[in-house]
Amino acid sequence: MKPILVVGSMAFDSVETPFGKVERALGGSATYFSIASSFFSELKMVAVVGEDFPETTLDLLRNRGVDVSGVQRQSGKTFFWQGKYGYDLNAAQTLETQLNVFEKFRPEIPKSHRSTPYVFLANIDPELQIQVLEQVKDPELVACDTMNFWIQGKPSVLTDLFRRVDIVFMNEGEARQYAQEANLVRAARKILTLGPEWLVIKQGEYGSLLFSKEEVFSAPAYPLEKIYDPTGAGDTFAGGFMGYLSSVGQVTSTSLRKAVVFGSVLASFNVEDFSFNRMLSLNAEQILSRYREFERLTHFHAETEFPSIRLLNSTPR
Amino acid sequence: MKPILVVGSMAFDSVETPFGKVERALGGSATYFSIASSFFSELKMVAVVGEDFPETTLDLLRNRGVDVSGVQRQSGKTFFWQGKYGYDLNAAQTLETQLNVFEKFRPEIPKSHRSTPYVFLANIDPELQIQVLEQVKDPELVACDTMNFWIQGKPSVLTDLFRRVDIVFMNEGEARQYAQEANLVRAARKILTLGPEWLVIKQGEYGSLLFSKEEVFSAPAYPLEKIYDPTGAGDTFAGGFMGYLSSVGQVTSTSLRKAVVFGSVLASFNVEDFSFNRMLSLNAEQILSRYREFERLTHFHAETEFPSIRLLNSTPR
Repeated sequence: MKPILVVGSMAFDSVETPFGKVERALGGSATYFSIASSFFSELKMVAVVGEDFPETTLDLLRNRGVDVSGVQRQSGKTFFWQGKYGYDLNAAQTLETQLNVFEKFRPEIPKSHRSTPYVFLANIDPELQIQVLEQVKDPELVACDTMNFWIQGKPSVLTDLFRRVDIVFMNEGEARQYAQEANLVRAARKILTLGPEWLVIKQGEYGSLLFSKEEVFSAPAYPLEKIYDPTGAGDTFAGGFMGYLSSVGQVTSTSLRKAVVFGSVLASFNVEDFSFNRMLSLNAEQILSRYREFERLTHFHAETEFPSIRLLNSTPR
Repeated sequence: MKPILVVGSMAFDSVETPFGKVERALGGSATYFSIASSFFSELKMVAVVGEDFPETTLDLLRNRGVDVSGVQRQSGKTFFWQGKYGYDLNAAQTLETQLNVFEKFRPEIPKSHRSTPYVFLANIDPELQIQVLEQVKDPELVACDTMNFWIQGKPSVLTDLFRRVDIVFMNEGEARQYAQEANLVRAARKILTLGPEWLVIKQGEYGSLLFSKEEVFSAPAYPLEKIYDPTGAGDTFAGGFMGYLSSVGQVTSTSLRKAVVFGSVLASFNVEDFSFNRMLSLNAEQILSRYREFERLTHFHAETEFPSIRLLNSTPR
């Protein structure tokens, strides 16, 4: 098992969906990522919170084996996001963002964390993501996430970042926007020429795609009858993905494909309730059971001989 | 092998996409379906064409083993559709529809066709689809397609139809519209209570879902770098699906899953060129090769023992 250093946000989120709403629920990319990853791996978190962030949430993370000694507590308020989802749960409408203590966040990686073998750079300013990479010591695997705001505002910094990471996570709109290419396959190929070996494209309720220069892997989303709140689904996906990779400690086509499925499994649970509430009651048996359901969901028998098929029109006419 | 009776439209389509355009290209739901199915099965077509429909196209179908003796030629013009696609190739904008001879089409199933074991009712007025079922004799398998126009205009006739068919094909927007349910899984469950044993939900570039009361199967679309024209993709999908089922002659969970993949294979080829041009140069080897690529695209190893995973948080806290 390879411990994971994660750098990202901790936040309060007020979220409204067609199925209910929550006020100032616990959130943030590093929080979702760490809780999902903690089922598989040991985490070291670097983030910033304000005076208003509850110590009980840090305790909750500590109880899951997450090292929160790198979480800075600063005077002021914690990052706050307010958003709303309609029936199209793939797209959030941001109503308010208060950066608060996050505005002046400069990630400082404690000495004890600098040799962590796996690094996940959650969605923050790509200049800060690069600053993290300048502090860590020869990580075996670096993955990053980003968002439309940075693609729009700092595309060349992102390109610098992509040259230095192994795995990039993006959603499909972001991949198209960054590559300036409407076709998703060509957009992916273009991003892979910049440096990363693997690109994971998240497609919300449609699942996800894993691209390398040599192959493509497609995984569906788990078909859910009730999706309460998609907030944090992408970070939870990345957490399950990186957590699984960390638990097996090797990065191969086989382990990456399984990692995508574990990412999908964790994300599918997370959207079943607001905030990360569903994660807190989740157990190993439920994770493995849903992983096997993904197998049933996608399995078909490959035909190698096709003995039974009459291919009547086997030559071009 | 179980021959297939298909009833639907034959048409001229003028189509514009970001990648080019064609004027009065050959099209129609029954045409696309039959050409795709003809790789696997023997087809009997029932449709109507005008005086302007080229005999060479009927010859092309005959050469592929399609029985076109049920295609009526009537005085007047053939059905004409003009449409346009933007970069979002999932949604066509209809610019013009001329029903022409199709306006008074009443499908008459020739006596020689009435005992065909498999029946596919392509997208036409559901009252006509029911008229077809009243003429055929105990088919083993009946499948139907439909569209938003009929869901809007004749929902109760569609419900009558669904009670009498085994497999319904819809796209995801149509399934949500018909079931009046935003969640796709719940929409599917609702439609399955009406009678059909299986529901295939087409999701364009995102693939497709096969639902029964007991299971769900998800297949991706083939990741293509160039999609020239999605016209006819749904009918080609249904043609590959039904053609494969027909070639194996049994309808089981296993054969249906493979049928979805063969449908996806044929549809993926069809969108590579305008009209059904790509189908005409396609051969068996290419079909089987792409089927195997779908296997590589979706395969991951199921974990049964998970010996390598440390699930650290295995009990709820």
